[in-house]
Amino acid sequence: MQIAIPLFDRFTALDAIGPYEVLSRLPGARVDFVAFEPGVVRADTRMLAIEVEKGLDEVPRPDVLVVPGGAGTRSVMHDERMLDWVRGVHEHSEYTTSVCTGALVLHGAGVLDGLEATTHWLYTDRLDRPVARRVVEQGKVITAAGVSAGIDMALRLAERIAGQDIAQAIQLAIEYDPEPPFDSGSPRKAPDRVLEIVRGAEAAQHAQT
Amino acid sequence: MQIAIPLFDRFTALDAIGPYEVLSRLPGARVDFVAFEPGVVRADTRMLAIEVEKGLDEVPRPDVLVVPGGAGTRSVMHDERMLDWVRGVHEHSEYTTSVCTGALVLHGAGVLDGLEATTHWLYTDRLDRPVARRVVEQGKVITAAGVSAGIDMALRLAERIAGQDIAQAIQLAIEYDPEPPFDSGSPRKAPDRVLEIVRGAEAAQHAQT
Repeated sequence: MQIAIPLFDRFTALDAIGPYEVLSRLPGARVDFVAFEPGVVRADTRMLAIEVEKGLDEVPRPDVLVVPGGAGTRSVMHDERMLDWVRGVHEHSEYTTSVCTGALVLHGAGVLDGLEATTHWLYTDRLDRPVARRVVEQGKVITAAGVSAGIDMALRLAERIAGQDIAQAIQLAIEYDPEPPFDSGSPRKAPDRVLEIVRGAEAAQHAQT
Repeated sequence: MQIAIPLFDRFTALDAIGPYEVLSRLPGARVDFVAFEPGVVRADTRMLAIEVEKGLDEVPRPDVLVVPGGAGTRSVMHDERMLDWVRGVHEHSEYTTSVCTGALVLHGAGVLDGLEATTHWLYTDRLDRPVARRVVEQGKVITAAGVSAGIDMALRLAERIAGQDIAQAIQLAIEYDPEPPFDSGSPRKAPDRVLEIVRGAEAAQHAQT
């Protein structure tokens, strides 16, 4: 089973690495990171660089697609090279998925037409039928909320692909028994002052890039 | 604030990227990935390659050290170049931390002498004073359990460094409101057959490498 994760300038690393860490452990699975061209791709923080070995055209028919988000989706969601590739992959995929604002790329490609979907809570208004859930499954199309939600999404996907025992074994292998020290991981739970900090940081980043 | 994350052949990606995603969002923080030598470092799955721009000797005095785990720790925990670097860093650090079997590297460097600590549940017998907790704080030394526990550890560390509002804002920004589809993320919770799958996979990997 081939799993493709496209990376692009200013992707958010955990969006991609969460699902990678889960899905790469599926028996017989191979995760291929892909980019417009092979070479170094830099994350949104500029502090992390991934060496991507395959171009989009080298991975035309993966079984599973996972599109991560990040500030870079702002341009990638309009880039016809990416959108054409996503459309072509989706035509034959077993699963087409996204994490965070990766959903905006699926949306740009028309994959979400008529479907409920989710994305990072700051960007749900960009979707036609947004749903405030962590993972939204619509047949073979699965979207996850912001950043860390990709881990939960990938575990559900692991169950659909390989069954519950394997999915639970992957959860145990990555010791995913979360104990967040606070309960502010959702806009419905965080105090207003915390929401304002995040909105302010996002606005500042938007102004900068 | 400089945060150093050493990478080495066969590290586990989420061990490093979980804390990176949290700590890189601290105001004024800079995360530097470091390696024995600058260049490409490959993760345990061989499916991911990170371009590391700095050698260990270029980052001698970071404020925070985060040592990830992975199959590669089996050799790195005995590598005097790494252990000397870790000792030198720890002498001046504000925080010295590990995720998963990164604790075995801290152990090898003597950082855990006399301290309680945790690591991936399969490896707790390698520590002198193992504790079955997700995050163990002993003054400036903080160890996290397997793989995904680095996210919880980094959020606690974010609180100690920047206060609760900022730590909560980071939790909200990465939408860390976990909803694992199963409750098998700990050896105390997973069914026996699931434990056996993970133990079998680990033994097979050991035999291979």
